[in-house]
Amino acid sequence: MQIIVQKYGGSSVENIEKIKNVARTLIKRKNEGYAMVAVVSAMGDTTDDLISLAKEISDTPDRRELDALLSTGEMISSSLLAMTLVNMGYEAVSYTAYQLGIKTLGDYGKSLIKDLDDRKIFNSLSEGKIVIIAGFQGINEIGDITTLGRGGSDTTAVAIAVKLKASCEIYTDVDGIYDVDPRLYKEAKKLDIIDYEEMLEMASLGAQVMHSRSIELAEKYNIPLYVGLSNSYIRGTIIKERNSMNMESKPVTGIATSDEDIAITLKNIENDINFLSDIFGSIGNKKINIDMISQTAPLNGKVNISFTIPEYDLNECLNIVSEYVDKDNISLDKYITKFSIVGIGMKSTSGVAARMFKVFKENSISVKMITTSEIRITCTIRTADKKKAIELIAQEFNL
Amino acid sequence: MQIIVQKYGGSSVENIEKIKNVARTLIKRKNEGYAMVAVVSAMGDTTDDLISLAKEISDTPDRRELDALLSTGEMISSSLLAMTLVNMGYEAVSYTAYQLGIKTLGDYGKSLIKDLDDRKIFNSLSEGKIVIIAGFQGINEIGDITTLGRGGSDTTAVAIAVKLKASCEIYTDVDGIYDVDPRLYKEAKKLDIIDYEEMLEMASLGAQVMHSRSIELAEKYNIPLYVGLSNSYIRGTIIKERNSMNMESKPVTGIATSDEDIAITLKNIENDINFLSDIFGSIGNKKINIDMISQTAPLNGKVNISFTIPEYDLNECLNIVSEYVDKDNISLDKYITKFSIVGIGMKSTSGVAARMFKVFKENSISVKMITTSEIRITCTIRTADKKKAIELIAQEFNL
Repeated sequence: MQIIVQKYGGSSVENIEKIKNVARTLIKRKNEGYAMVAVVSAMGDTTDDLISLAKEISDTPDRRELDALLSTGEMISSSLLAMTLVNMGYEAVSYTAYQLGIKTLGDYGKSLIKDLDDRKIFNSLSEGKIVIIAGFQGINEIGDITTLGRGGSDTTAVAIAVKLKASCEIYTDVDGIYDVDPRLYKEAKKLDIIDYEEMLEMASLGAQVMHSRSIELAEKYNIPLYVGLSNSYIRGTIIKERNSMNMESKPVTGIATSDEDIAITLKNIENDINFLSDIFGSIGNKKINIDMISQTAPLNGKVNISFTIPEYDLNECLNIVSEYVDKDNISLDKYITKFSIVGIGMKSTSGVAARMFKVFKENSISVKMITTSEIRITCTIRTADKKKAIELIAQEFNL
Repeated sequence: MQIIVQKYGGSSVENIEKIKNVARTLIKRKNEGYAMVAVVSAMGDTTDDLISLAKEISDTPDRRELDALLSTGEMISSSLLAMTLVNMGYEAVSYTAYQLGIKTLGDYGKSLIKDLDDRKIFNSLSEGKIVIIAGFQGINEIGDITTLGRGGSDTTAVAIAVKLKASCEIYTDVDGIYDVDPRLYKEAKKLDIIDYEEMLEMASLGAQVMHSRSIELAEKYNIPLYVGLSNSYIRGTIIKERNSMNMESKPVTGIATSDEDIAITLKNIENDINFLSDIFGSIGNKKINIDMISQTAPLNGKVNISFTIPEYDLNECLNIVSEYVDKDNISLDKYITKFSIVGIGMKSTSGVAARMFKVFKENSISVKMITTSEIRITCTIRTADKKKAIELIAQEFNL
């Protein structure tokens, strides 16, 4: 029998009425002949409510205990969904990460799923039961509860689909993946298909529809993912491998922007590789993620260096750099936007970067830093130019 | 190092401010040189809130899933308490039933603890950590989460104290065990000491301070229990073995009353032992707990039978008896009170029952059914007579 793993986000289970809708969808698919597994997030704002409780204790609550606390949200929603199915006359059973032996690696709050034991799931499915699984959590090597980070239930669903050789459907509060954020560009179009790599670049660049790790896992095991609304006739987006050589594909699939970074510039510092690596080494030791770096040409042995970091790491980062650089030589720019174009078609199309920068130049949009990957070009622009940049580039590449 | 296991009820952890008070108490005792373990109930009304959610789904929610749901309440409070201790600069760690391998037997919602693995607790204590444990829950033979019933965290605490050979302190929202419910009798006195057997009889008869199973366990392993308020100089009550032959002990230690039962009378039925055992067998099969039975002398081969059941089982019980007895011959009495006197001293003092019934007779309090144990005499009286009966009997036995 074919197994379908569905993931329901917090807004799909935010109250009992919505949980009943999810139960009806599961029953409908089961009656069509599928073996059904559902992975659920915590109800509505539960996770935020639990975080608020922890913040009453400390701004930096103990991370082991925070994970133990947050894991309860998904336990609540999963047992309520199973209870609802039983009440509708269908056999169902909920499982926690402990019960399924979902093993994790890595830090609290951002663990990776290493493995899981599928026997309980297979046994329950073979007994005709609908299986409900608490997402977002696992158990690490020393038996502590850990969580997978915001959106981690996506990854739980994909990991289970991989293990069960099942297809995977991610139900969320958006109706699919768009080529541009529809809140920023009214003409944004929904994509029928997007490649794993494209989706990964989009997800890591601010299009926070899905947990990045879930896409990496799906790509690794070549599991297609459907992303869309539950209980809707609107068709969503399929994330799967696309052929980059397809002549019909556009070079640019989508635009992603992010305002969450801040640029720091260190002026007039020694152009000494040891000195620079000391600074960036100290920043890296604090797990602060430097994204883009640019450097001016040396003048009298001195250079200016600019780099971007997430805004929430600003204070910690300033403490570090001020040990190396005089405060008068440190400047900040909060009003930058990371602007990216992403497309698997770039692999087989040259001149894409040139077209983008030509449009920016003709329209007086100044570009500060640039990074690229095989399927992505990212630059920083002034946040004030964001709307204009999106419109111009969307027209240029026919999005 | 001596280990102390403390149990904190829901009112002791109902908000972060109160959790901080509990943390301070634990730290104070740790600084006095004890190894500290705390078992916590769910915060304030959490359990009732979760039950309300389940009731939105069904009046009789699936019991496996209800237990999975309710177990989250204690996980939340235990992780918050551990987080608070860490924030106060003390090492602490919370554990769920799964993490400690707390194995249970029996039905969902009223499981018994069978065993638990103490290694994690000992390891954490030996590392100088304060150990916090989610009460009320365990894992049964098939790996499902089960709960121990209302007040079950008491039993978790005693089971852990037994396993660790620790002393046990139960902190609750009353300042100790009284000889009569203080809400019913203003002159009620707090007991310094009560015997396990007396406490068990009181607990099962409506003095719902403690989970009965916790007292059984403590008696079996002869662990003294302290019951009282946390953060208070008011001395509570110690539950331990008392010598029944002590000449100074009063024959009656306390009075317990309960209004939660209802009396059913079956009139004019065949005095046939097979017929009667059929009826009571059918009631027993539904796990309805018949407490007291009385029967009139046969008249023309017919008798009247009265018995009491918990009021919440009334509808189910009526469905059963109406299969055997014509509806006109079934009558109900909702206004009965079970009135009990309890005392280990009854073992060595005769005439206690006679003194009670003499007082009732002289004051026109009519007694319907009677049951006794070695240390208890229970009868049903009219609920309207309850207050008068308590005052008269308290005076008679010098309570």
